[in-house]
Amino acid sequence: MKRTLIEKQEFDRIRNLSMLESLQYALLADMIRVNTLTSVKIAGSGHLGSSFSSADLIAYLYFKALGLSNENLTDPSRNIFFSSKGHDVPGQYAALYALGIISIDQFLRLRRFGGLDGHPDVHISGIEANSGSLGMGISKGKGFAWAKNYLKVGGHVYVIIGDGEFQEGQNHEALLSAVAQDIRNITVIMDHNKVQSDKYVDEIVSLGPLKERLASLGWFVISIDGNDFYDIDYSIKLSKSHHRLFVIAHTLKGKGVSFMEHPTAMAKHQGLYPYHAGAPDEDSYQQGIDEMTRRIVLYCRQLGIEPVQFIEAEELNPQQPVVYNALGEPVSQASVLNQPLKAQAEYVVNAYGDALVELGAEHERLVVLDADLSSDCRLRKFEHAYPERFIECGIAEQDMVSMAGGLARMGLLPVVNSFAGFLASRANEQIYNNTSEKTHIIYAFHYGGLIPAGPGKSHQSLRDISLVGALPDSTIVQPSNPDETRMALKYFVEQAKGCCVLRMNIGPSPSTIHLPENYRFQPGHGAVLRQGSDAALIAYGPVMLHEALEAAKLLEEKAIHLRVINMPWLNRLNLEWLEETLEGISQIFVIEDHSPVGGLGQFWLYQLNAANKIHRYRLHIWGVDGWPACGTPTEALAYHQLDAASISYKISRILKHQFQLQSS
Amino acid sequence: MKRTLIEKQEFDRIRNLSMLESLQYALLADMIRVNTLTSVKIAGSGHLGSSFSSADLIAYLYFKALGLSNENLTDPSRNIFFSSKGHDVPGQYAALYALGIISIDQFLRLRRFGGLDGHPDVHISGIEANSGSLGMGISKGKGFAWAKNYLKVGGHVYVIIGDGEFQEGQNHEALLSAVAQDIRNITVIMDHNKVQSDKYVDEIVSLGPLKERLASLGWFVISIDGNDFYDIDYSIKLSKSHHRLFVIAHTLKGKGVSFMEHPTAMAKHQGLYPYHAGAPDEDSYQQGIDEMTRRIVLYCRQLGIEPVQFIEAEELNPQQPVVYNALGEPVSQASVLNQPLKAQAEYVVNAYGDALVELGAEHERLVVLDADLSSDCRLRKFEHAYPERFIECGIAEQDMVSMAGGLARMGLLPVVNSFAGFLASRANEQIYNNTSEKTHIIYAFHYGGLIPAGPGKSHQSLRDISLVGALPDSTIVQPSNPDETRMALKYFVEQAKGCCVLRMNIGPSPSTIHLPENYRFQPGHGAVLRQGSDAALIAYGPVMLHEALEAAKLLEEKAIHLRVINMPWLNRLNLEWLEETLEGISQIFVIEDHSPVGGLGQFWLYQLNAANKIHRYRLHIWGVDGWPACGTPTEALAYHQLDAASISYKISRILKHQFQLQSS
Repeated sequence: MKRTLIEKQEFDRIRNLSMLESLQYALLADMIRVNTLTSVKIAGSGHLGSSFSSADLIAYLYFKALGLSNENLTDPSRNIFFSSKGHDVPGQYAALYALGIISIDQFLRLRRFGGLDGHPDVHISGIEANSGSLGMGISKGKGFAWAKNYLKVGGHVYVIIGDGEFQEGQNHEALLSAVAQDIRNITVIMDHNKVQSDKYVDEIVSLGPLKERLASLGWFVISIDGNDFYDIDYSIKLSKSHHRLFVIAHTLKGKGVSFMEHPTAMAKHQGLYPYHAGAPDEDSYQQGIDEMTRRIVLYCRQLGIEPVQFIEAEELNPQQPVVYNALGEPVSQASVLNQPLKAQAEYVVNAYGDALVELGAEHERLVVLDADLSSDCRLRKFEHAYPERFIECGIAEQDMVSMAGGLARMGLLPVVNSFAGFLASRANEQIYNNTSEKTHIIYAFHYGGLIPAGPGKSHQSLRDISLVGALPDSTIVQPSNPDETRMALKYFVEQAKGCCVLRMNIGPSPSTIHLPENYRFQPGHGAVLRQGSDAALIAYGPVMLHEALEAAKLLEEKAIHLRVINMPWLNRLNLEWLEETLEGISQIFVIEDHSPVGGLGQFWLYQLNAANKIHRYRLHIWGVDGWPACGTPTEALAYHQLDAASISYKISRILKHQFQLQSS
Repeated sequence: MKRTLIEKQEFDRIRNLSMLESLQYALLADMIRVNTLTSVKIAGSGHLGSSFSSADLIAYLYFKALGLSNENLTDPSRNIFFSSKGHDVPGQYAALYALGIISIDQFLRLRRFGGLDGHPDVHISGIEANSGSLGMGISKGKGFAWAKNYLKVGGHVYVIIGDGEFQEGQNHEALLSAVAQDIRNITVIMDHNKVQSDKYVDEIVSLGPLKERLASLGWFVISIDGNDFYDIDYSIKLSKSHHRLFVIAHTLKGKGVSFMEHPTAMAKHQGLYPYHAGAPDEDSYQQGIDEMTRRIVLYCRQLGIEPVQFIEAEELNPQQPVVYNALGEPVSQASVLNQPLKAQAEYVVNAYGDALVELGAEHERLVVLDADLSSDCRLRKFEHAYPERFIECGIAEQDMVSMAGGLARMGLLPVVNSFAGFLASRANEQIYNNTSEKTHIIYAFHYGGLIPAGPGKSHQSLRDISLVGALPDSTIVQPSNPDETRMALKYFVEQAKGCCVLRMNIGPSPSTIHLPENYRFQPGHGAVLRQGSDAALIAYGPVMLHEALEAAKLLEEKAIHLRVINMPWLNRLNLEWLEETLEGISQIFVIEDHSPVGGLGQFWLYQLNAANKIHRYRLHIWGVDGWPACGTPTEALAYHQLDAASISYKISRILKHQFQLQSS
């Protein structure tokens, strides 16, 4: 496949021109866009709309204002720049490649293991801060700025934030206290591209008249065209003379590729913006490249210079593995996981979205709350079926959760949605507070677990079970397939009480998990998916159960017979069921789509110990230790030795050892 | 001791007068203040300043505007009122007593088991919402309001917030989205008493010009004198006709008792306000009562009515226990805990405050961050010694934590302070995000654990260990005494890396915990505090270690010899040390000042299991199951069977049973 790239030396050549700056930076911005589009296309995923809207700002900051280079990367007096929203990081990577701060090899490994994380991470040269969920950037920028002042080193701090991101209250905390803290050497730039994940900010939660509000917080505020060189130049020059400058930079989401620019794109797609995340298809990629290359050629002609050279970027060579599983096999050759998960079509979250609509029909008190992830969380059907019962809260998880508390106190049944990593963590105290009122609320923890691993550690959720585990009156369930998802949601709506957590994988299921014919969804009961007498392998969710079943197949070849059990109840255990189900088995392996701390394995350990039955079993708990790896599903699972090959290998070694002990 | 009280019928009499409303409500407000002062004095703790500033609003709302009664407590069409800050709940209790919604017995049991929680809790009749840490109220109010609209029931929603509380960003989230969510039937009243815990809001983090900002968020804003009947009357009447009314009610903190009113009080106490929390001494109590009773008499004369009758409230009879320990003993007779913890003078947190100053002298990169708990967290000495390294963040834990992230990225060593329940929970994702940057930050989790139990479940922290347990690169330590506190902080400052959590009890230590002569503070190593051969009792922190040692004494009398071990490392365990230390012992008892989920016991269980050594031991893990009890330390410990008497009783039964098994 043809993948167009512009090499570093071409950026050097254009940067070294001394001429009409406006044209020069427009050209550089388009060159960044070309490389951004290519890296995202190769990665198969990434945030184009946001990278394109801020490309002109990025070009100006990295090539003119910051003076960042390999020489001063760690110099405390350097200018600090980072993006709080983080979605636009592919554009930053393109600029850092152009500056020679990251290599071409790394640049072409976006969202791959050992390459560039899907969201900013400081292990990458030139990246100053990790973006978390949204709204942390101004606070962090204040930290950099305060430290520069205290350490009496020079340098200015620039933070780019999103407009949707501005719905997070933490921004307000940061702006308000900046005055009391006498923070002066900071400039906040809002990339005001008007569009959140796929709708207009004004459709989600309008920011209202910003200038007055920001001024009343003690900031000097200006509005500029964020895609215009002269405006950007003016605002950045102002930052030298004005303390706490807040720049509202009006931009177009998708700027630079006509059909990706939001007015056009949203008109074409029923008012929804389709290029926020994900990679474009082949045609769109080529169209985008063609449009930009034509314009680049034109700019060069206008500048009277040699045209910019384009080369063909080699795609990553799949025969060039960097991750090895427990057997020491390079993952690209690890048999079980050769087929990418994406090839599969089944999503538990689709079943969740359908079940919400079905249950909504029977239960008028069921209301759905969203924090601008309606599409990812599959809430759109409910949103359209019951608009009067759909509450859009914007990117403000804490407000959403506490609002649900009030709804529940009035007898409604709120179903609160966000990514597990954001909801369980950022709104943790609000969930605790609601639960302390003994009301009934359902929290849908989307994107639980390790996969997809491309977005990186800010999005992968490996702590969420532990974050609600000590909460009284809470029930945590993770379904394995669409049927079980419907059963779980129905149980939560019609039978459960208190804090109900429905943890779900957000990606496609690697394969369909088949539950037993007569399967009944009962608290504390799991289901045997595969019979076997040598040991039990316990897992939950489609990703880990797929690995478990594949591992069992691999072990079958070695005449080791695993009993594979699906355990959707993450903090409920019926001991009678357990003893019956584990009849004749002493070795139990639990694989976690979570940290081994505070997950299912520890819960079983605790329960078995409390019942004084732990001595009958030998429990092995394998989860995601340390920080989750960024990469393809294959890479991430293998890295954490949670792929079928690694699991089967580790189990076989333990059991062989045990057999040897028995025979000796 | 003389304790003045005004009975319900007197409130009825005054409420039923039809006359000059202004005088009538001024009188009722003072009557509320008298009963509030008495209930707080009897409780020995409570928030007077905040209850007094809002007393006029409370009197108007409960006696005129709301129409709340025993008849409509659960009627969905009732008017909803609650206080978001929650500190002023003693005043609300006084009003609810006057309305006959809570009984005199309950009213006089403020902060006692089976009485009234120190912060609002919905299990109490008439209380509509639990206050958590600050800033959740407007969001919850929106939930009530949205539900009323959806259910087509009438009624209005009134939420009182504090001015310091307004530093929390969640308020901003709630106000911003209220417009998009078309919330109309809500009125927010800011009790703008100008003072936070002990300093002026303007000294902590000024709110700046509020009116413009609030108006720009789509709210109708008015300013009133919140201690004036006519102004209050005007504003509440406006709420009928104006959607999303935001009332800035200017009040005096401590209003009604001249020496408690903030201008006077702060002038007298070096600019610090002394009546935010806690009970006044005997003289202050009497002075306050006398001043108010004189005024009440005067009002009655002006109104030409019979003077209000005052009675003497019996203090709670300590011979009237309501909590029973594991032996079935009423706690007031449970020998070990007869002396109230308050009698003791030693605080680990004092040592922490001193150590901060000492280490600050040696380490110029050490900076201290505060979220308006400088006094409680013992930061004042550092604040005065190194003002240039003390960063006041206001009541905004998320901003504080992320700002620390930026400071750490610049090479500084931030020490972040707040209550464990707020810091670990509300700022959980920010802590995760900082830690993912691999920087070194110390988080001081103050007020960890069950005691003091008077403030209630919003302040007691029984989940904080579990909330950081699954965080990579984190170390959690809870010191047992002042020496160990210094060692722990020094270790965190000079040797540790990553996320360092120093968990501390905030109250007085029940007794001095004596560490061994040659004690060395080493990762994963605990210390034997008392020798014994029958079983090991593991605990951490002064409160639980005190109970452990007292339990050991009680068991000694039964010839059961406990080995008592202090284990300050809550997520580090050196197995060699453990095996050596537990030589000859199989029964291990772990008592947690935390939920049994995600605490020290589960960590040991996990480590012993991973090392395949669990089968050598029998582990018993006892922690705070379910919701923490509100009451005196004695009551709370006994209720959760974590008092020495209960612990020793339960241990003796288990060991006896074991001995019987062995002998049979």
